Amino acid sequence: MSRVLYQYTPNNYETNVRLNKPHVMREKTLTMDTLNPQVKAVEYAVRGPIVTKAGDIERGLQQGQKHPFTEVIKANIGDSHAMGQKPITFLRQVVALCSFPELLNSPSFPEDAKQRARRILQGCGGQSLGSYSASQGVDCIRQDVAVYIEQRDKGVPADWDNIYLTTGASDGIVSILKMLVSGQGRSRSGVMIPIPQYPLYSAAISELEAVQINYYLDEDNCWALDINELHRAYQAAKEHCHPRVICIINPGNPTGQVQSRKCIEDVLHFAYEENLFVMSDEVYQDNVYSPDLQFHSFKKVLYEMGPEYFNTVELASFHSTSKGYSGECGFRGGYMEVLNLDLEVKAQLVKLLSVRLCPPVSGQAAMDVIVNPPLPHEPSYLQFHKEKSAVLGALAEKAQVTEQTLNTVPGIKCNPVQGAMYAFPRIFIPPRAVEEAKSLGMSPDMMYCLRLLEETGICLVPGSGFGQREGTYHFRMTILPTTEKLKVLLEKLRDFHIKFLKEYASLEEPKR
Amino acid sequence: MSRVLYQYTPNNYETNVRLNKPHVMREKTLTMDTLNPQVKAVEYAVRGPIVTKAGDIERGLQQGQKHPFTEVIKANIGDSHAMGQKPITFLRQVVALCSFPELLNSPSFPEDAKQRARRILQGCGGQSLGSYSASQGVDCIRQDVAVYIEQRDKGVPADWDNIYLTTGASDGIVSILKMLVSGQGRSRSGVMIPIPQYPLYSAAISELEAVQINYYLDEDNCWALDINELHRAYQAAKEHCHPRVICIINPGNPTGQVQSRKCIEDVLHFAYEENLFVMSDEVYQDNVYSPDLQFHSFKKVLYEMGPEYFNTVELASFHSTSKGYSGECGFRGGYMEVLNLDLEVKAQLVKLLSVRLCPPVSGQAAMDVIVNPPLPHEPSYLQFHKEKSAVLGALAEKAQVTEQTLNTVPGIKCNPVQGAMYAFPRIFIPPRAVEEAKSLGMSPDMMYCLRLLEETGICLVPGSGFGQREGTYHFRMTILPTTEKLKVLLEKLRDFHIKFLKEYASLEEPKR
Repeated sequence: MSRVLYQYTPNNYETNVRLNKPHVMREKTLTMDTLNPQVKAVEYAVRGPIVTKAGDIERGLQQGQKHPFTEVIKANIGDSHAMGQKPITFLRQVVALCSFPELLNSPSFPEDAKQRARRILQGCGGQSLGSYSASQGVDCIRQDVAVYIEQRDKGVPADWDNIYLTTGASDGIVSILKMLVSGQGRSRSGVMIPIPQYPLYSAAISELEAVQINYYLDEDNCWALDINELHRAYQAAKEHCHPRVICIINPGNPTGQVQSRKCIEDVLHFAYEENLFVMSDEVYQDNVYSPDLQFHSFKKVLYEMGPEYFNTVELASFHSTSKGYSGECGFRGGYMEVLNLDLEVKAQLVKLLSVRLCPPVSGQAAMDVIVNPPLPHEPSYLQFHKEKSAVLGALAEKAQVTEQTLNTVPGIKCNPVQGAMYAFPRIFIPPRAVEEAKSLGMSPDMMYCLRLLEETGICLVPGSGFGQREGTYHFRMTILPTTEKLKVLLEKLRDFHIKFLKEYASLEEPKR
Repeated sequence: MSRVLYQYTPNNYETNVRLNKPHVMREKTLTMDTLNPQVKAVEYAVRGPIVTKAGDIERGLQQGQKHPFTEVIKANIGDSHAMGQKPITFLRQVVALCSFPELLNSPSFPEDAKQRARRILQGCGGQSLGSYSASQGVDCIRQDVAVYIEQRDKGVPADWDNIYLTTGASDGIVSILKMLVSGQGRSRSGVMIPIPQYPLYSAAISELEAVQINYYLDEDNCWALDINELHRAYQAAKEHCHPRVICIINPGNPTGQVQSRKCIEDVLHFAYEENLFVMSDEVYQDNVYSPDLQFHSFKKVLYEMGPEYFNTVELASFHSTSKGYSGECGFRGGYMEVLNLDLEVKAQLVKLLSVRLCPPVSGQAAMDVIVNPPLPHEPSYLQFHKEKSAVLGALAEKAQVTEQTLNTVPGIKCNPVQGAMYAFPRIFIPPRAVEEAKSLGMSPDMMYCLRLLEETGICLVPGSGFGQREGTYHFRMTILPTTEKLKVLLEKLRDFHIKFLKEYASLEEPKR
């Protein structure tokens, strides 16, 4: 790291003379005491202290520092390209054509990519990716999103006026939550989130000073959502806040479960009865690996429940360029579809979005390719499908390898990775290790993951960053490393775990 | 507009049967009554009702509706490419190469563009624009930003650890404000902003429930910042809040003034004495048109004031890809440099940014080109400089034409457009028109701009959207249309204004 050092060279005589008079050093305006307490309350484990430490170790290795490993393997974040996944050629061709339209004259680009690029550019001011788009996004891309949703949902109508392009899914999720937070004390808005959850939700809830309402997923039942648990959480929360919104992540992050149609119908019925706004995070809709399961969108199920539901329940669903088979996290593309929003409220939402002007237009272009891929008669179709299937096939294989290998380790129990990109196994941590962690002021799974990182170079996120039932411990690991590297990772993890158990061995047997 | 209509086709017999039982329609969860009141309080005129109306008229024209004009001219927003400005070739070449690295083998791209693209890709995980970057941005781009700042500021040291890449400048500004808001009642954080201001500031202050402290720029003195007015505003605000931060926009938006070095030193001295955090919005640093004026960065002036200042005053300065000569708004690129931040607070800032993962990486790449343009010995140097000078030369010419033409109109008085991209002339609105507007529940300049739009197709933003002294009226117009179109716009505007004055003529003479 080449850091520029602060070396002050005086070049203004007059002001420097002032230094000779005695003075009290100016206090800082912004300190931990004066910092916005809502900012202080935010936690975000996916990029927390373990990841910072991993970065430090990585730089140390580059500078020749000695560690018991030669490489840090980052399995902490769903960042496909960083783990070696190659971009989908067609998507990048379209983005490159949009970025530098002179390439539209180049014979080395296929006609279908050029056609997509021309269409996107025609939707941009001055036919340039450099213009602001409308705050809701480029019209023709929103139209393509609506067509995509209709096809995905086998004809359920989609109105492009309900589509908002976003800066990744996170941006849309925070915007909708921001609209929904109001009231004070017992009438403060409560937000129901699954536990374990993706920590964007808890972070946004902290920042907005809303009330977090935990409903626990059923680990013993492959992390399924249990409707009785929803009722329990709702009733308990009603005592101290006003529950207004329920968030669902399907397929689950960090838990990887794929929700059944029946369960989705139950949730929607519950939301209907209790007058809750529904937020369905469906960014992993293309990531379903179990051959006997399929993705059902909340919208489609809502439609099938009939107009009494479909025309009333307020539902926002979220998608992204970052996951699926494209893994284009860096483009920060995404969309949300928002149903049954009050018309005046909708104008308020557009106003709110307009303050940030627009989502990145190249991310919008990337989103367009995902919802509008090559058709069977088009020149890029074969290559596109080959690349897409290769990514999804490898992920399915890695999902299985991960689950199976983890379940061979004594003291680790992993549910099937039905979808998404993560395993969230339960780990047995011996009581003596729990005590040691507590004496260090650390959660036991944090201590576990720190030691794992220091001894093996494997970077995972402790379960406490996502939430878990009291007294249980987990970690989240991605299934994104190449199959070869993943096998090495799992082997190192097994050896580490067995060594860890031995080190803290007590009379108690590891639970399976 | 091809809208898909909601036509419900029942396909689920069981649930539809329920429709036969009488029921009360479910209430909406999110209504204007339950909406977050801080969201409701947000105003953002740059994309307000006038702009929505302009869009409606534009679509009407396309569908053959009759209007007294054939084209809507949008001079409401600093969106260069939408007004016909061409992208800088080198910038787009680098972005295209990064997006589709196969092009690195193409002989049609110059070597210096390839070298920039390779360097950026080496800084990205998996050498892909599709990976998340670190939350502060790609390391090597932050290093390039630091080198740029050192050169701009003639050797004042810049540490890349203080550089944060952002999603446009807006994102950085909101993040810093978010950190600074705390306290309740009389100890609530106060934010000093210029009036007129860019409404991102007032919108963010509303959203964060901070206290807005207005300091008025001196219209009679070319919109200069008056240090006595700062003191007045500060003392008055201290009675009801805790002033903690001062925002400056230099060159000014919407007012176009370029601040003198002396004035900047006065502001910094004031901030030092009153323990204020300084936020300097310098996104127009390349947009200075008056040959006898130059841009001084707040940072350089702070340095020249001596270490007592340079090592203590907390200063965040903001830049963007959206303005300058490149006008790449759609890429949402930007950076901030933050000096003297408390180390623990800095960790909190990084944590806050990490929840949104990272700024769009293609926007980061665009930012890199702006801070690291071709050097004199490189193959793209000549073309780059030709393009850059053409844009800035045309803007300087249009700044002058705009000021001069507006000042020929009776009842319009325009300060010199020294920098940025806007004129903010004062307009005389006859008392009878003021009364009429008030009877319509509208601000007089809003009525003026609406009528202008309806009668001429010109889309401007009323001064009330930026703030102005009670009883004065203005509008903001960009100087971005092509010279030819700008002249037409100014002529139509003059005719409209004269007609407007006549229509509402009273005994009073228009003020000059």
